[in-house]
Amino acid sequence: MDFSNSARSDDYLARLNAFMTEHVLPMESTILAANRQLNPTGDWQSWSTIAEVEQLKKLAKAQGLWNLFLPDDTLGQGLTCTEYAPLAEATGKVIFAPEIFNCNAPDTGNMEVLYHFGSDAQKQQWLTPLLAGDIRSVFCMTEPAVASSDATNMEATVEVDGDELILNGRKWWSTGLGHPNAKVAIFMGRSNTTAPKHAQHAMVLVPLDSDGVSIERMLTASGEYDAPYGHGEVQFNNVRVPKTNLIWDLGKGFAIAQGRLGPGRIHHCMRAIGAAERALELAIQRGLSRVAFGQPLIKLGGNTERIAQARIQIDQARLLTLNAAWKIDNFGVKNAMTEISAIKVAVPNMLQSVVDMAIQIHGGAGVSDDLPLATFAAMARMLRLADGPDEVHMHMVSRLEIAKHIAKVSV
Amino acid sequence: MDFSNSARSDDYLARLNAFMTEHVLPMESTILAANRQLNPTGDWQSWSTIAEVEQLKKLAKAQGLWNLFLPDDTLGQGLTCTEYAPLAEATGKVIFAPEIFNCNAPDTGNMEVLYHFGSDAQKQQWLTPLLAGDIRSVFCMTEPAVASSDATNMEATVEVDGDELILNGRKWWSTGLGHPNAKVAIFMGRSNTTAPKHAQHAMVLVPLDSDGVSIERMLTASGEYDAPYGHGEVQFNNVRVPKTNLIWDLGKGFAIAQGRLGPGRIHHCMRAIGAAERALELAIQRGLSRVAFGQPLIKLGGNTERIAQARIQIDQARLLTLNAAWKIDNFGVKNAMTEISAIKVAVPNMLQSVVDMAIQIHGGAGVSDDLPLATFAAMARMLRLADGPDEVHMHMVSRLEIAKHIAKVSV
Amino acid sequence: MDFSNSARSDDYLARLNAFMTEHVLPMESTILAANRQLNPTGDWQSWSTIAEVEQLKKLAKAQGLWNLFLPDDTLGQGLTCTEYAPLAEATGKVIFAPEIFNCNAPDTGNMEVLYHFGSDAQKQQWLTPLLAGDIRSVFCMTEPAVASSDATNMEATVEVDGDELILNGRKWWSTGLGHPNAKVAIFMGRSNTTAPKHAQHAMVLVPLDSDGVSIERMLTASGEYDAPYGHGEVQFNNVRVPKTNLIWDLGKGFAIAQGRLGPGRIHHCMRAIGAAERALELAIQRGLSRVAFGQPLIKLGGNTERIAQARIQIDQARLLTLNAAWKIDNFGVKNAMTEISAIKVAVPNMLQSVVDMAIQIHGGAGVSDDLPLATFAAMARMLRLADGPDEVHMHMVSRLEIAKHIAKVSV
Amino acid sequence: MDFSNSARSDDYLARLNAFMTEHVLPMESTILAANRQLNPTGDWQSWSTIAEVEQLKKLAKAQGLWNLFLPDDTLGQGLTCTEYAPLAEATGKVIFAPEIFNCNAPDTGNMEVLYHFGSDAQKQQWLTPLLAGDIRSVFCMTEPAVASSDATNMEATVEVDGDELILNGRKWWSTGLGHPNAKVAIFMGRSNTTAPKHAQHAMVLVPLDSDGVSIERMLTASGEYDAPYGHGEVQFNNVRVPKTNLIWDLGKGFAIAQGRLGPGRIHHCMRAIGAAERALELAIQRGLSRVAFGQPLIKLGGNTERIAQARIQIDQARLLTLNAAWKIDNFGVKNAMTEISAIKVAVPNMLQSVVDMAIQIHGGAGVSDDLPLATFAAMARMLRLADGPDEVHMHMVSRLEIAKHIAKVSV
Repeated sequence: MDFSNSARSDDYLARLNAFMTEHVLPMESTILAANRQLNPTGDWQSWSTIAEVEQLKKLAKAQGLWNLFLPDDTLGQGLTCTEYAPLAEATGKVIFAPEIFNCNAPDTGNMEVLYHFGSDAQKQQWLTPLLAGDIRSVFCMTEPAVASSDATNMEATVEVDGDELILNGRKWWSTGLGHPNAKVAIFMGRSNTTAPKHAQHAMVLVPLDSDGVSIERMLTASGEYDAPYGHGEVQFNNVRVPKTNLIWDLGKGFAIAQGRLGPGRIHHCMRAIGAAERALELAIQRGLSRVAFGQPLIKLGGNTERIAQARIQIDQARLLTLNAAWKIDNFGVKNAMTEISAIKVAVPNMLQSVVDMAIQIHGGAGVSDDLPLATFAAMARMLRLADGPDEVHMHMVSRLEIAKHIAKVSV
Repeated sequence: MDFSNSARSDDYLARLNAFMTEHVLPMESTILAANRQLNPTGDWQSWSTIAEVEQLKKLAKAQGLWNLFLPDDTLGQGLTCTEYAPLAEATGKVIFAPEIFNCNAPDTGNMEVLYHFGSDAQKQQWLTPLLAGDIRSVFCMTEPAVASSDATNMEATVEVDGDELILNGRKWWSTGLGHPNAKVAIFMGRSNTTAPKHAQHAMVLVPLDSDGVSIERMLTASGEYDAPYGHGEVQFNNVRVPKTNLIWDLGKGFAIAQGRLGPGRIHHCMRAIGAAERALELAIQRGLSRVAFGQPLIKLGGNTERIAQARIQIDQARLLTLNAAWKIDNFGVKNAMTEISAIKVAVPNMLQSVVDMAIQIHGGAGVSDDLPLATFAAMARMLRLADGPDEVHMHMVSRLEIAKHIAKVSV
Repeated sequence: MDFSNSARSDDYLARLNAFMTEHVLPMESTILAANRQLNPTGDWQSWSTIAEVEQLKKLAKAQGLWNLFLPDDTLGQGLTCTEYAPLAEATGKVIFAPEIFNCNAPDTGNMEVLYHFGSDAQKQQWLTPLLAGDIRSVFCMTEPAVASSDATNMEATVEVDGDELILNGRKWWSTGLGHPNAKVAIFMGRSNTTAPKHAQHAMVLVPLDSDGVSIERMLTASGEYDAPYGHGEVQFNNVRVPKTNLIWDLGKGFAIAQGRLGPGRIHHCMRAIGAAERALELAIQRGLSRVAFGQPLIKLGGNTERIAQARIQIDQARLLTLNAAWKIDNFGVKNAMTEISAIKVAVPNMLQSVVDMAIQIHGGAGVSDDLPLATFAAMARMLRLADGPDEVHMHMVSRLEIAKHIAKVSV
Repeated sequence: MDFSNSARSDDYLARLNAFMTEHVLPMESTILAANRQLNPTGDWQSWSTIAEVEQLKKLAKAQGLWNLFLPDDTLGQGLTCTEYAPLAEATGKVIFAPEIFNCNAPDTGNMEVLYHFGSDAQKQQWLTPLLAGDIRSVFCMTEPAVASSDATNMEATVEVDGDELILNGRKWWSTGLGHPNAKVAIFMGRSNTTAPKHAQHAMVLVPLDSDGVSIERMLTASGEYDAPYGHGEVQFNNVRVPKTNLIWDLGKGFAIAQGRLGPGRIHHCMRAIGAAERALELAIQRGLSRVAFGQPLIKLGGNTERIAQARIQIDQARLLTLNAAWKIDNFGVKNAMTEISAIKVAVPNMLQSVVDMAIQIHGGAGVSDDLPLATFAAMARMLRLADGPDEVHMHMVSRLEIAKHIAKVSV
């Protein structure tokens, strides 16, 4: 057993932390303010990129702090999921930092899908510019009319018509859809509703300027439009794309989604852990600097215990996630289903709890935009729903746990 | 012991509920959308009243559903705190409803201050138009630079200069400061820092157009500007007002604040209970209407238990608050300190928990603006800080509880 | 609305509290030690009554503090459920105190069954000596082989054979079965398994010296035999009793059980609240008297907040229970199902939490028999299972809550 | 990073698990019943060893499953703390199993003290028979009269009188003191109250048959005497031992205690994790085998979610503990203080929560002695107090966490 980070990962981490300290943290309030200036309305067509972000992206790319998530020596930095995990945590401390390193969702997941399942033509057309950070992509899975946590509820359809595919359906919570650089969506629909439950879905690449794609609005998440990214609601009306836009094959949508989710969960959980560390830092700093009733806030009432509980919760969440990453690297996603579901439950709840504590210790400032805490709170709330609510993942953990005993009984 | 509502209160409640059903709920999404249209920027100078709100106010006033909170037969409807409590709950179901009935914070608290402690001239100048709903007011207590939960930290000052008072200080979280009708603030500052701890403060009426009052910005609370009300940060630089603007007397600020808080806490706690009831209704309706894995969501996993826990939590919170109201009515605020502090802790936490559950059962829709849940969540978060954080009120409850035993020991 | 206790109840409460202070509390450790001396083995046949308890019973009876639970002017003191509630709380402060006042479970519930549903002969034979405190009774419902929370699982049978009933089955957790004065059981079994679900059960009076009744062992509850009462496992093998021992009628067992449970839950919940108050008192006294790191324990870390949370939890639990009692008194058990189920969930969980806190503040002493806390903890744990686990009652609350909305939809 | 167990540890684990399955689990109920037969009274002088336990000890010793905890190739099996951890977990599944492998507290801690700090003579006299399992030992630290969590409160004294030491004081919660084989105590007292806070204590070896040692009683822990081990209260009155019985030196008591605690916490936390796994297994098996309302219990209400939460909690607790073990092995106890304190808080609370869930799913059987759950619950409760309450360890975690930021500020 060895809990130490690899030398390669440690080297990247040192450079990444230095970059965060020198370049990202000093720009945090400027960029967040710029985002908020875009933010006010749902008028996403007017949203633009932020010059400072583009500048930082160039700098990170130049320093080789780019596509860190991709386990490919040539296209990425060749880091394993376990090696990338501490880097994802470091980027999680600032809400917009992952993009600086081209490591932001949903592009990372989409790039992984193209990397693992895309045709050469698909890779050339979409993966290359995504890896370059020149365009952005969205993932269209969740639907407004049904409980999307049950994938068999999906109403969107993919029909084959000669050399073309016809797509219909309404999707929402398509994150990043409002970004000016968003050029392509991965659309998930059902192509064969009579096949076995997990062989009915297809994933299709759809250029966002296709006829029949109409972006209807940006949604707010806990009151925020999250400009210039946005969470979109979009209608697909008889959208026609060439059959070559199909990823892998018909009926493989569910399998692709499963593969996409494993590393993706490590990424977002580690980022959430970084956010929690940041929230804890802020809580302690505030608690030390403010005085009430003759003592620093941090020493009053249960505050010291809250700090301890936060440290313990964060450390447990991190170890659970690192262990899941290690299982993925060494045994594959299919043999890490308990772990991958477990972190999906444990980590966002931990973040919600730690951020709530940090807000409380800040008083009114905690819910204002003067600090990143309200944004982290909104992110935590969203993460408990995104990519399946807690309940679905608890169900998975429970099912696998109970199965151990049913096997015992029946054998 | 009698847990039934008085006939008078029941009568008002029936009429109020009918009004809510007929007039307010049908306008909820229209008015919230109109608010959001104002909302986008912190450019509060451009905010305006919403015509539909003004219309509903007229209607409510015409029906005698007006100033229900004020325990005066002539100026209000003569309801006791206990009798008003169920009405406050009913108005809590829609975030903007209290204003329709001229029962919104902070105006209610300010009107109570003027009613109990104001001079005749102060009443005529400010209480009359407030009771008419023609103007709005703000309460300037919290300060950005210090931990305001300890009132002795307050840095704002009130100096006497002949017939005038000179006010200095910076305040924030002055709710309602952005409203076009906001005309007057109650400013709290320290006039005598050598007096005993609770005899140092003064409250002063300050017209918002006074020289030296500069509104610097509206703050966001969990991402929301809450237009057209807003939460303001405001600087008072050598603001001069006539000495007749002093409420009660120098050194009485703390006593006024205490008196103001008792009924005010009943009001906001009962509104929070109404919001929780609404969230529970929405959760059940969503849980019944959505199907996953072959069953209505409400039947899956722990959802039925969550519904039960919400019902139990809400009922406990309501009874605690009604009991506090009854104590205030029958024994006075000073003899209800445990109860008043207890509800301040219990109720907002209950709301936060119930709303979080309701959001979860809604999936992504829960955090969007399509439903009032995200707004209730933001309100719950704010209520755990507004008018003192949980911790300060737990300290009060604890102090009084422990004191019972110290008395026993020492006697 | 009126949260004050009736004058009659207040008068009894004052006398009861005085009795507790003068007579019961000073004997607490003596009697608990005597119980423990009986306790060591499961050899229940050797158990005897405790002389001090019998003495206190006589004294209480002489002072008219007797059968306080029974809402009958002649047989009891004519107190309503609401009026008795504060008295039950007062007796809950000492684990054996309810018996002193002939107000202990399961005799109270059994007496109520006989009072409401018993024939004159049954009353004369069993109710009279029970009301006199001369004998004790048990209630045989729970079974070891099935999940008893679903009454339709019950395997025990009641067959009619001419003028006799034949009883078969195995029961456990028959509390009080080890007591030397235990003379009669109310046995619940199924007489007609083809009737509708809630019309299958019968309740039958069984003298414990009947042929075929074999007490097999006393169970420990969280390590305690609870001598001289005990929790028995008992086999009924072709036990024959006269048909006149049937209570009410065949098929009425479920209805009797429901009626029995309403007031019974008020009683045990109020006693649990009394236990929680006692635990809180002990916690504060310990916290004030021990010093660590230069301060009384009570001031360290989160202890003050724990005291506050305990006060708030207890007050909420009490109000919920009093409200349920008032509903039973004024609208009947059938119209108080939500309330009766709600307290069954909320109160034992509250007790478990408060006692756990009190134990923690005591350190090792908290789990020892030097204090009543370990016993209260065991009681709390048991109460979360006795008469249906939390989950069954949450299900009931949830079902009634959801039904409100289904009605709305379907009408 | 590598989460896999070493081959050596895996080999021992396989053999240990086989031994548990073949020899220990089949004897569990027999031995627990035999313990209970001893258990009834506090009459510890009558307690005897259990023949079956002695038999199993011989067998384990013969198989080399002996002294697994001791990181010495000759005296133990040479396993690191990290390598021993999974073995400790495996022994935790049965409450008395650790003794079978000579790995039970407090002997393990006492052996470590002798191993690291004992003189050759001390080792020969006491370590040798302890390693052989021929005698048992106790640790006398906690005192009844003071809050022992603050070591400076300790009232016991160690005085030097020529070649002798004179010991005075009263200790309680000296676990194992009732065992017939208990021959020696490590006594902790203060020898120099004017030295710096952490240089005042001494540890002294005291044969239990020394003059002046009077064992006054065995305490119950949550109602259990835990025979034949017991938790003793013992008076030391002018007990004289040769100065050579002093461990290390005067003033070193605190340092020895710190060193003793590190690995000891890993041991008891891993055992607690084993107990939690056992509780979870029992919960699932019960939930699958009992039916209510037409379904296995496990599928009702929130039960599946509870299973998932238990799995997640256990896995997090295990990873936290393994990480602490790895830190101790690689960086020393002094550099693992956060981790060692964190597991002391997290693991017993996890066990308490998981066992409580398992009890609940069992209904009445859960609190009976038919299953090990009530005993695990008592153990969990005790572990939250033993060797310092949660609060002391949260304080430590918090202090170290806050110190990171104070350093930043001051540098």
